[in-house]
Amino acid sequence: MNTFGTLYRLTSFGESHGPAIGGVIDGMPAGIKVDTDLLRREMARRRPGQSQLTTQRKEDDEVEILSGIFEGLTTGTPIGFLVRNKDQHSQDYSNLKDIFRPSHADYTYFAKYGDVRDYRGGGRSSARETISRVVGGAFAKMALSQLGVTVRAYTSQVGTIALDPDYHKYDLSQTELNDVRCPDSQKAEMMAELIRKVRSEGDTIGGVITCVIQGMPAGVGEPVFDKLHAALGYAMLGINAVKGFEYGLGFAGTLQQGSEQNDIFVPSADGRITTRTNRSGGIQGGISNGQDIYLRVAFKPVATLLRDQPTVDKEGRPVTFKATGRHDPCVLPRAVPIVEAMAAMTLLDQYLQQRARTHFMP
Amino acid sequence: MNTFGTLYRLTSFGESHGPAIGGVIDGMPAGIKVDTDLLRREMARRRPGQSQLTTQRKEDDEVEILSGIFEGLTTGTPIGFLVRNKDQHSQDYSNLKDIFRPSHADYTYFAKYGDVRDYRGGGRSSARETISRVVGGAFAKMALSQLGVTVRAYTSQVGTIALDPDYHKYDLSQTELNDVRCPDSQKAEMMAELIRKVRSEGDTIGGVITCVIQGMPAGVGEPVFDKLHAALGYAMLGINAVKGFEYGLGFAGTLQQGSEQNDIFVPSADGRITTRTNRSGGIQGGISNGQDIYLRVAFKPVATLLRDQPTVDKEGRPVTFKATGRHDPCVLPRAVPIVEAMAAMTLLDQYLQQRARTHFMP
Amino acid sequence: MNTFGTLYRLTSFGESHGPAIGGVIDGMPAGIKVDTDLLRREMARRRPGQSQLTTQRKEDDEVEILSGIFEGLTTGTPIGFLVRNKDQHSQDYSNLKDIFRPSHADYTYFAKYGDVRDYRGGGRSSARETISRVVGGAFAKMALSQLGVTVRAYTSQVGTIALDPDYHKYDLSQTELNDVRCPDSQKAEMMAELIRKVRSEGDTIGGVITCVIQGMPAGVGEPVFDKLHAALGYAMLGINAVKGFEYGLGFAGTLQQGSEQNDIFVPSADGRITTRTNRSGGIQGGISNGQDIYLRVAFKPVATLLRDQPTVDKEGRPVTFKATGRHDPCVLPRAVPIVEAMAAMTLLDQYLQQRARTHFMP
Amino acid sequence: MNTFGTLYRLTSFGESHGPAIGGVIDGMPAGIKVDTDLLRREMARRRPGQSQLTTQRKEDDEVEILSGIFEGLTTGTPIGFLVRNKDQHSQDYSNLKDIFRPSHADYTYFAKYGDVRDYRGGGRSSARETISRVVGGAFAKMALSQLGVTVRAYTSQVGTIALDPDYHKYDLSQTELNDVRCPDSQKAEMMAELIRKVRSEGDTIGGVITCVIQGMPAGVGEPVFDKLHAALGYAMLGINAVKGFEYGLGFAGTLQQGSEQNDIFVPSADGRITTRTNRSGGIQGGISNGQDIYLRVAFKPVATLLRDQPTVDKEGRPVTFKATGRHDPCVLPRAVPIVEAMAAMTLLDQYLQQRARTHFMP
Repeated sequence: MNTFGTLYRLTSFGESHGPAIGGVIDGMPAGIKVDTDLLRREMARRRPGQSQLTTQRKEDDEVEILSGIFEGLTTGTPIGFLVRNKDQHSQDYSNLKDIFRPSHADYTYFAKYGDVRDYRGGGRSSARETISRVVGGAFAKMALSQLGVTVRAYTSQVGTIALDPDYHKYDLSQTELNDVRCPDSQKAEMMAELIRKVRSEGDTIGGVITCVIQGMPAGVGEPVFDKLHAALGYAMLGINAVKGFEYGLGFAGTLQQGSEQNDIFVPSADGRITTRTNRSGGIQGGISNGQDIYLRVAFKPVATLLRDQPTVDKEGRPVTFKATGRHDPCVLPRAVPIVEAMAAMTLLDQYLQQRARTHFMP
Repeated sequence: MNTFGTLYRLTSFGESHGPAIGGVIDGMPAGIKVDTDLLRREMARRRPGQSQLTTQRKEDDEVEILSGIFEGLTTGTPIGFLVRNKDQHSQDYSNLKDIFRPSHADYTYFAKYGDVRDYRGGGRSSARETISRVVGGAFAKMALSQLGVTVRAYTSQVGTIALDPDYHKYDLSQTELNDVRCPDSQKAEMMAELIRKVRSEGDTIGGVITCVIQGMPAGVGEPVFDKLHAALGYAMLGINAVKGFEYGLGFAGTLQQGSEQNDIFVPSADGRITTRTNRSGGIQGGISNGQDIYLRVAFKPVATLLRDQPTVDKEGRPVTFKATGRHDPCVLPRAVPIVEAMAAMTLLDQYLQQRARTHFMP
Repeated sequence: MNTFGTLYRLTSFGESHGPAIGGVIDGMPAGIKVDTDLLRREMARRRPGQSQLTTQRKEDDEVEILSGIFEGLTTGTPIGFLVRNKDQHSQDYSNLKDIFRPSHADYTYFAKYGDVRDYRGGGRSSARETISRVVGGAFAKMALSQLGVTVRAYTSQVGTIALDPDYHKYDLSQTELNDVRCPDSQKAEMMAELIRKVRSEGDTIGGVITCVIQGMPAGVGEPVFDKLHAALGYAMLGINAVKGFEYGLGFAGTLQQGSEQNDIFVPSADGRITTRTNRSGGIQGGISNGQDIYLRVAFKPVATLLRDQPTVDKEGRPVTFKATGRHDPCVLPRAVPIVEAMAAMTLLDQYLQQRARTHFMP
Repeated sequence: MNTFGTLYRLTSFGESHGPAIGGVIDGMPAGIKVDTDLLRREMARRRPGQSQLTTQRKEDDEVEILSGIFEGLTTGTPIGFLVRNKDQHSQDYSNLKDIFRPSHADYTYFAKYGDVRDYRGGGRSSARETISRVVGGAFAKMALSQLGVTVRAYTSQVGTIALDPDYHKYDLSQTELNDVRCPDSQKAEMMAELIRKVRSEGDTIGGVITCVIQGMPAGVGEPVFDKLHAALGYAMLGINAVKGFEYGLGFAGTLQQGSEQNDIFVPSADGRITTRTNRSGGIQGGISNGQDIYLRVAFKPVATLLRDQPTVDKEGRPVTFKATGRHDPCVLPRAVPIVEAMAAMTLLDQYLQQRARTHFMP
């Protein structure tokens, strides 16, 4: 199904070459000032054609809000929205009608829905669907900002070029200063170089996005199945091209012993309880502990190559496929705002769930 | 909340030192022969005290089925079940009443629920809760076996001792022949050695479990938020101590270029469509493609150390804590059946969702 | 929340005087031919200004489909849609800004959401929201028609003028031949007369709609909480102005003894099992038994009167309120397609839930 | 499925002649003192064999709580519970194996699940399943009592003997003083007389239960599909033998004009806003308005008659069926606590949903 969340929900619709992409945000708290600058900024961050590193497709992506707002404030009712599809080179895709592109969703859609696929530009499986996530995330950020919660992601690896895993070593306010969205300007330039190189070869490259959440109060998250990090992982794994998720020390922590990894509780300066280290990544037993939450998301290289690839058509006959049109050689730079959006929606949803019961707390 | 799944659902309850652990399985298809041997075998695999490598706690863990079965067949109605808690050394835990153990859920439960925590043996956050998952997974396996689907997990890494990432190099039928549940007997012995060593130091160690699913038909999985791998990742990240999830090439694939990673479609011997390689891990666009699904789950080292650790009490005062009682130095061996159980429930759930609509398929 | 259904879902958005009303249909089976005539016809049935008996507001209500359809077939992906709001006499409502109309949702929205209400024309609580239900119902009917299921509602009571409770006495194909949507043309004329009379007094009148579902296969419905009739009742009680729901003999059956009410099973002509009578209303134990499902829905008189009424403003000060603008004196005629839409969505949803498990049936 | 509710949830399991009936309560707020007297009292109210008016089956129905409580307080974790089935005259039911009792769920279970039905005593469709509802309702009442909310039901009609629809005419504290659970002792005696009469004829009788909820704060309920009264109606229609639901003036109000039915807002003595009348039944636009909520639930006569009835067996062959064993001639007296339980769970669930968002309220 196409709905994400429990108390804060995004329902998404739209194909890349249909009339529009859009969605419905449900559960937005009432009375929150709509920050249209924030919304516009987030949309601009995901937009194609921002730089030489991303697809040159032009998408204006102007969001039209259809409901749920009155005199600049959220009303608590659902927020319907849409973005019209324009600049559609649908003819670029006529060659996709009968073939299954390698490592795309063409074949699996065929297996799932039968032979009624909107093959143009990937249809529903297009990255253009992320528009609805960015809108959902922008409104979640508006609510979270009232709680003092910030959500910041950045490109931490492209191919073999990687930042240090410790985000404290970087000034995250520098992330947006380069096209790769990497807070280390030198590494950013190396990453950009690599992306340009693979593009020139008609190839693509993967990488990792790191996300840091600060200001989340302790006590949020459901302790058994719906652990806060399980919800975050689910959110991230629902982004196209994501192949892995980890938080805290993640896979690297499997190499260590418990004595190296435990976070020791200590009194904080203001008389509260804090931890000396934060290897846990701000979540213990599935519940936030008030420390920074940090996580990493693995993206595979884009499946669309600008070179010949063998494949088969619907009847299973061998054919040769070469993508035409305008494509991203690396999704990382444009996926940074998507990672933030999914995180923001997840955090607000779980925060609301926790709020529901605090009235009765002893 | 404590319910997992949409059409096949497990609702779980129970604390480690309360009267019982149990749950309700809902959505089990009717008319399936109950394989009590399978259920008993799965329970035995998760049981403590199986070997020198795991905790010496004795738990008989006899499952009592309370409903949903008649004359040896499932009836389609909910299956209630429970396992009584016995061999409870509750006094071992009286020292936990007022302190927060490092990297455990004590503090976060306190932040979430207030000062009404069942502190004995971790209470609800105890690994004993996995009993309900094993029962839910065993029934899911009974249904999946009718579809020809198998789910097999194994320990693929303990600390720095790791198998080759390619599961084809191992004979998975060998997994249960050693205490580590590793299909490579030599590596298994090295892993066992390492576990014994860290235990002797009062320390613990983490690792990775790999899971391989075979026989899943193509077309299962919801393509946007509820991708098959997102559901699997959510399931795995809900297991205690899990810090990361990846499928297909996962994080390693982020180092590669698209031309190295795409899976080329080819006709299969029987005239159907298959792929030459399976770097995608059996899922494309969130939907199964009929190839093997394989995934990896990262477990941190157990937080309970048999040595002194500094921490704080509820008032934030520094105290020294040393665990007593019987604890696992490494959860991997006993977590293998839990990984399988979570995978099996997820797969059956998504299979049922796909089944709902096939009647109308063109 | 604003989502209806489990496997066939409608998510609705929109205020009467915002930019648009719309929604997202999720779970529509793939490969179904889109019957645009049916959709247009259903929209025409709910439209205001159809006759002298309903509001004279003009609403073109042209539905724009934004996704989920390709070359005239459903694709299985979500169907986004919207209807632009036009002919908005927003100035008619400026007097509502600070007052609470009697028996409307003004005060309760204020209590729920705080002082950020879109007061124009009832905002989210306007009957205009039913547009999204009609669209959701129309698509459900397209799928149900493939199963041979028909859903037909009619006005069976206006004020004290009532039809016989037994729908067999009427030719339901006559329902659409008069403005009241009553299959008995004589009673229809009496009802029309009554509606004209109350309107001339600036007053309004309530009534009952009966709905008959034929062709539903046996075995659909979840037997405990989610009984088929509980789902139908929930659907109907979610329509504005509905105050009651009954099926089968309903409240009248409470006067009888069991021996008068039981339905005796008998072999049918074609060797299957049927019932001699159908007092149960086609549902036994919450599950369809293959007989006709029939139900009745009670609508209160519209709260908007074209006469002076005392009330209070936001500060609790007494004021006098008189509605202006164009309003329905009786919602029954226009509510007939809404009742059908809610029934159709419910039936398809529960049918899909049942389908999910039949593969395993012995 | 067998789960009821969103944030306060009951998952139910059990057949009448299996090992046990039970369930899991999830979402219970933490830190609430467990009122075991209340729980015992509610269980006693639903118990068979209380009086000459109900079945003479003996059921001790001692609830065993398995989790979620520590030192007399709820902990916020799920509350598992069960009641063992005893006094099972399973042999009374061996004659049900192959036949379909008239107006019971035997045939529809067969149609739904195939030929694997636990036919003993109705199996899952037995009224014994209401044990889990009573437990779920009792805990909901414990939380509601902290909010000052009371939920009181009573028998308002048996056959043709009916109370005045206005509950203000009765002293509801008198309800439990007679076996019928009717606050008018004279009418109660007439009802008892009627029940005794139909029982002596081997027949059964239906009726109506009224429920009154007081103290519910304004602002609770979701305004579109999940209206507070839609959720209440859904809850009631999920009780066995219920055929109708209405609230406020209900079906009777369909006879009236708007001018007779609107509730006029007036300032209350304490400076707040109240209504002069309460024909709306405490809910406007699906949201509570702070006035009393009152509703009526129609129960059909019990289908089990102690007399010969014709029916068919599984092969469709005519047979004669006569119930043996001990059965209720009228469910009303024992259904009163069930109506309260379903109402209490619904109210707490919707209250929690509303609480989730109030933090942000302007």
